[in-house]
Parts: sequence; structure tokens; C-alpha cells
Amino acid sequence: MSHPALENIRIVLVGTTHPGNIGAAARAMKTMQQSKLVLVAPKIYPSAEATARATGADDILAKAEVYDDLKTAVADCELVIATTARRRSLPWPTITPRQCAEQITQAGAGETAIVFGRESSGLSNEELELSHLMLQIPANPDYSSLNLASAVQIVCYELLVNALSGSEPDADLNAETYASQKQMEMFYEHLEQGMIEIGYLDPDNPRRLMHRMRRLFNRARLEESEWKILRGLLSAMQDRSGNMK
Amino acid sequence: MSHPALENIRIVLVGTTHPGNIGAAARAMKTMQQSKLVLVAPKIYPSAEATARATGADDILAKAEVYDDLKTAVADCELVIATTARRRSLPWPTITPRQCAEQITQAGAGETAIVFGRESSGLSNEELELSHLMLQIPANPDYSSLNLASAVQIVCYELLVNALSGSEPDADLNAETYASQKQMEMFYEHLEQGMIEIGYLDPDNPRRLMHRMRRLFNRARLEESEWKILRGLLSAMQDRSGNMK
Repeated sequence: MSHPALENIRIVLVGTTHPGNIGAAARAMKTMQQSKLVLVAPKIYPSAEATARATGADDILAKAEVYDDLKTAVADCELVIATTARRRSLPWPTITPRQCAEQITQAGAGETAIVFGRESSGLSNEELELSHLMLQIPANPDYSSLNLASAVQIVCYELLVNALSGSEPDADLNAETYASQKQMEMFYEHLEQGMIEIGYLDPDNPRRLMHRMRRLFNRARLEESEWKILRGLLSAMQDRSGNMK
Repeated sequence: MSHPALENIRIVLVGTTHPGNIGAAARAMKTMQQSKLVLVAPKIYPSAEATARATGADDILAKAEVYDDLKTAVADCELVIATTARRRSLPWPTITPRQCAEQITQAGAGETAIVFGRESSGLSNEELELSHLMLQIPANPDYSSLNLASAVQIVCYELLVNALSGSEPDADLNAETYASQKQMEMFYEHLEQGMIEIGYLDPDNPRRLMHRMRRLFNRARLEESEWKILRGLLSAMQDRSGNMK
């Protein structure tokens, strides 16, 4: 279920107080193709509230592993990254979610844990010392209290974006056929001719107006079907104009 | 309160069903230094649940503007971006949250709306047609049901990261004034009328052609000077067509 590039990642929630946050975190994980959830000493778990908030991500809850302490939970990990909202007196190497995603990709296949602390008090110093890196989510300096699931959401989002950046471009988006450069020249000639016929093209300054039109329609990058519509529109305009000659 | 680079952005929630999601969205916004919340026809609002879930972001709720419809809510916007989870048969230009953040920074000072639809059904086609761009958050193809506040969180996160990256907006690009949403509606009415007058708009299927035109010109994002040129062109076309009646 999880993206191949994300298979060695586990999301670790330490000492979560509100079971609803565990469910919401599971949902956030699943939307971003993460599947390994590890809980360390959750206050209340399992819980109906967790399942309710997971809405469809209960498979992640069902196979979540539960440990008594963080040390055991990350014992087999090659890389442990701790999230923190606070600046600490003893500065640890701190990375952003985007750097975290890059780091994990670079790190290769090793088991990696991304650790989220308690809603109110975060991670203890002892827990932080199990970590290689500290991750800080950019936030409002006056109001940095991200909801736990929101923090999980952002970190997992960056991981997925990074994983997808290595994959094939979306075939759907390439399906459209665009007007060729040659077709565009035909269109501009047609447009210029049409504007002359209806008396709109300023004979004192024809280049300027056509320049603006080229700029506009090149920017829009016409699809072939749109090109046909506009050509038809110009022909209809010319027919009406021609009738009065 | 909001970051200077983010001042012209409003987050618009359309037809939100659960008031708790409005509160959670306000909290998500505030953590990412966004402050302008606009609600369009919320099911239940104001609401104690919204305030409870906002936890400390109730200042954002307090000054939220409420409108009956999306058209009014974005009338003064130069750029309207609609979020969507679904692929649609007729593809609209689609961007990622990161591209969205870059686009807004490049666009400079204009009023910008980022629109989030109903929890269950998203945005209507009519609402989508008010938009220049469609934003899609990368997600698990098998489970893309992001919570509303999570979607707001990710988009606002990308905006803040982009703002903090400190890149000065390009002065050249800022010089341009774009046509407002209201002006674009005038243009589409004018275009429709003009196409009827020259006999090009198929009376059996008027919506389809106008839909294609909206898609094309919204994508191009008309500058105000271009808007004037096209309006003049339509008037000239109508004059010639009218002369023969």
C-alpha cells in the first residue's frame, strides 16, 4: 500500500494524550501513502475515538505496533528524526520537513523513524538524545501550536512529494494535444485579417496589437481543440462582416 | 499578524458541513501566518464547536467574512485558485501546492483567493468556472480523502515556506494589473453575446462552448490591458454585425 520509496519509514507517536489525535494521524498518514504507525506509551489505546477519527484508515491502526518506551521502538532504526516545535538551549542539528524528506531519500533503504512527541510537552531530553536529527516545521513564531495530526500531515506530505518527484510524469496531463507552432502562425494571420476586416486593427500601429495578442495566446498555450474553436469564431466573424460589404 | 508576503491571500471555505472543520482550518491557518478567512454559505456558523476547535485562533474566526455565494466572495480577486481532489473529464490547468505558492509570489500584490469545497462533494462546476487554476494536493490514489483542515494546513504551509524563502517578488511582474473576477464575468457575458450575434454560439449547446472559453481565458489570466483589448475587439465585432441587420 505504501509508496516503494516510503517503505522503510515509521511514524512514531510518543505519549499521545488524546486518542482522537492517533486516529487523525493515521488518516493523515494514509492520505500520504504512509502505512507504518508505532505508538509509544499512548495514554488511552485502543480507543473508539481513535478509530472514529481514522475514518477509513483503520487498517493502519489495526497493525500499529505499541511499545513502552521510545528506545525499544526505534532500536532497529538507522536514522531517527525527532520533531520539535520549540527552540532548545542546547542546539541540535535542525532540519525542515523538506530537508527531512531529502535526507531520507539520500539515506537510502535504512529503517527510519520520525518521532512526534506529546501534545503538551513534546519529547523529553532523554528521548531527544535517541535522535540523530531534529525536525522543526516552519510556523508562526507567535502561534506555533500545530495539532499533532497536522504536524504528521505536513511531514508525510513532504515525504510523498519527494517520493513522487522521482516518478514518471502523469500520463493524463500529457494526453492533451497542443496547437503546433505552424498552426499558431495560421491563427495569428487569421486573427490579424479578421481584425482588419471589422476595423479594429489600428492601421497606424498594427504591430503593437498583434504583439499583445501573440503574448496572450502563446501564454495560454492553445490546445488543438481550442485552436479550432477560435478559428471557427474568426470565420463566423468574417462572414458577418463580409456580408455588409 | 500575517506575513507581509501573505497579506493579499484569503482562504475561502465553501459550504462547510462540520463547524469543527472551520475551527480546525482557522487554527491551521494561524500556525502558518494566514489571517483572512472567508466562509461561503457554511451549514452551521457561528458555532461553539468551531470556536472550540480553533483553540487560540478564535481571532481569525472573529473577523471571518461570510457570504452567500462564491461569486460575491471572490468578486475583487485577481487570482482564484480552486482546490480539488478529483480528476475531471475536461482537464483544467492543475497545479500543486508548491506551484501555487510560487505562482502567488510571482503574481505579486493582487488579491488572491484559495478556495476549498464541501467535505463530501467539493466544488460545483459553476464554482470551478470562477477559478483560474485548479490545485490538487498530491495524495494516495487509493485514499485521497484529506480532512478539510489538513488540506488547508498543507496549502498554507507551502505558502509560508515560500514566503520565508525570502525571494523578493519580481518588480517587473508586479507592475501588471490583472482583470478582476468581476471584470472577467463582464468579459464572458460580452463574449457570449457577441458569439450569439455573429451566429457562432450553438443554441443547442451554449454551455459547452462557454465552458471551453472560460477554461482558456482563465488559464491565460488576462491582464487588465488585454481585457480592454478583447472587449474592444468584441465591440467592433458587434458593431459590424449589427450594421447589417
